[in-house]
Amino acid sequence: MRIETLLAPGEIEEGLVKSKTVAIVDVLRACTTIAFAMSHGCERIIPVETVEAATKLASSLERGSALLGGEREGKRLDGFDLGNSPGEYTADLVKGKTVILTTSNGTKAITLSQGAKEILITSFVNLSAVARYISAHGCKGLTVICAGKDNRFALEDAVCAGMLINEVCKTGECELADGSQAALSLYRLHESSILDLLRSCEHGKYLAGIGFENDLKACARVDYLKIVPVVKDGRITAAKLGRGRSRSS
Amino acid sequence: MRIETLLAPGEIEEGLVKSKTVAIVDVLRACTTIAFAMSHGCERIIPVETVEAATKLASSLERGSALLGGEREGKRLDGFDLGNSPGEYTADLVKGKTVILTTSNGTKAITLSQGAKEILITSFVNLSAVARYISAHGCKGLTVICAGKDNRFALEDAVCAGMLINEVCKTGECELADGSQAALSLYRLHESSILDLLRSCEHGKYLAGIGFENDLKACARVDYLKIVPVVKDGRITAAKLGRGRSRSS
Repeated sequence: MRIETLLAPGEIEEGLVKSKTVAIVDVLRACTTIAFAMSHGCERIIPVETVEAATKLASSLERGSALLGGEREGKRLDGFDLGNSPGEYTADLVKGKTVILTTSNGTKAITLSQGAKEILITSFVNLSAVARYISAHGCKGLTVICAGKDNRFALEDAVCAGMLINEVCKTGECELADGSQAALSLYRLHESSILDLLRSCEHGKYLAGIGFENDLKACARVDYLKIVPVVKDGRITAAKLGRGRSRSS
Repeated sequence: MRIETLLAPGEIEEGLVKSKTVAIVDVLRACTTIAFAMSHGCERIIPVETVEAATKLASSLERGSALLGGEREGKRLDGFDLGNSPGEYTADLVKGKTVILTTSNGTKAITLSQGAKEILITSFVNLSAVARYISAHGCKGLTVICAGKDNRFALEDAVCAGMLINEVCKTGECELADGSQAALSLYRLHESSILDLLRSCEHGKYLAGIGFENDLKACARVDYLKIVPVVKDGRITAAKLGRGRSRSS
């Protein structure tokens, strides 16, 4: 299997996602938050690009059935029910609910990946679950898209992409494009302490500085969740997983 | 000094280049070839984006004063005097001449960098010369742009960017953005054999496959040339360098 990795969303081209299995990586924090929400029983998440589109969609849905979540510059938006912290998405709040989510980078990467065969939401917390899903579904080509930060490279996403590549390569022969090779190298440099990585990367320092240090700890919990959120027809739901051993078990 | 590194040209935004010192890295092969041409007495190089613009410009200049150089898919273009191999740009051919150059990635990155305070043409062959120039000119902010391949990440450019960062950081305190940190890490992984890197990266394998194995050897000659080509008003000329010790001396 050939694995392409786009280290920044500016690299996205139609040919790299069309009919491919795409793994979108946004460690801080959209993909982590989506995994937490799904594992707490959230029924579906609708990712939208703009705040205006999010509030408009919310007003069109039945009152009480949908929650508004997301951030700009890391902070919860005025009038929104939830921000972008994994810990906010508790079962009490999200079980059985629809969440309309708009974030600065993660939801944009999802929008740019339209045309993919399937889109898998990936972060450290559900890394092995995504890797097992890819291996079990025998996809022919994998494109890993690092959501980055404001169209730029983000180190934590590259390292997470490298961890995914490392896991997928354990189950079969892989041909790695330059971006995948770089991501794998960066993962091997940082694998011994993911929390240190999140504390030292640019966006991690920014989030800690505005009071989200606890989010870094949540985002660093490798394989904490056995869930694979998939995007289909503009909705994110949890994939039905077969039985299998987890990486951490 | 803060150092930003754009690992792929898709990351370029006006704010990252405007009034900044920009180092464009395109190891295979435009930036290497420009350094060879300049060190062999080429008077100026005019980088243009399209083949059409190159031929049109050539026909407007005095016959015999200008040469047409460049490539598409790595190969010399029909009717062009030169391809994109460093070894072609001998003193016999280029001394005192103007070269109109169009390449797939390098010249595009130059065009995208308009608005920069200065643009320095960087590759392994003139690495320390560029680093010394930056340190001597006391620039406040440096943006390193990896030209990549067809808008995508290319490992050899990231490693060369990392080598530049490593040299510049020896002469003063630097703050490294995520992309710079990643480039530096990738350089440290590959510094022991640049030629092996060029033989194993995607574009290097492609070039070797179409008969340009010798170009890889030329491009891997770290600090072979003491020249800093600079782009100004759409022209590339050699910067006048002060006296100083070279890295290899």
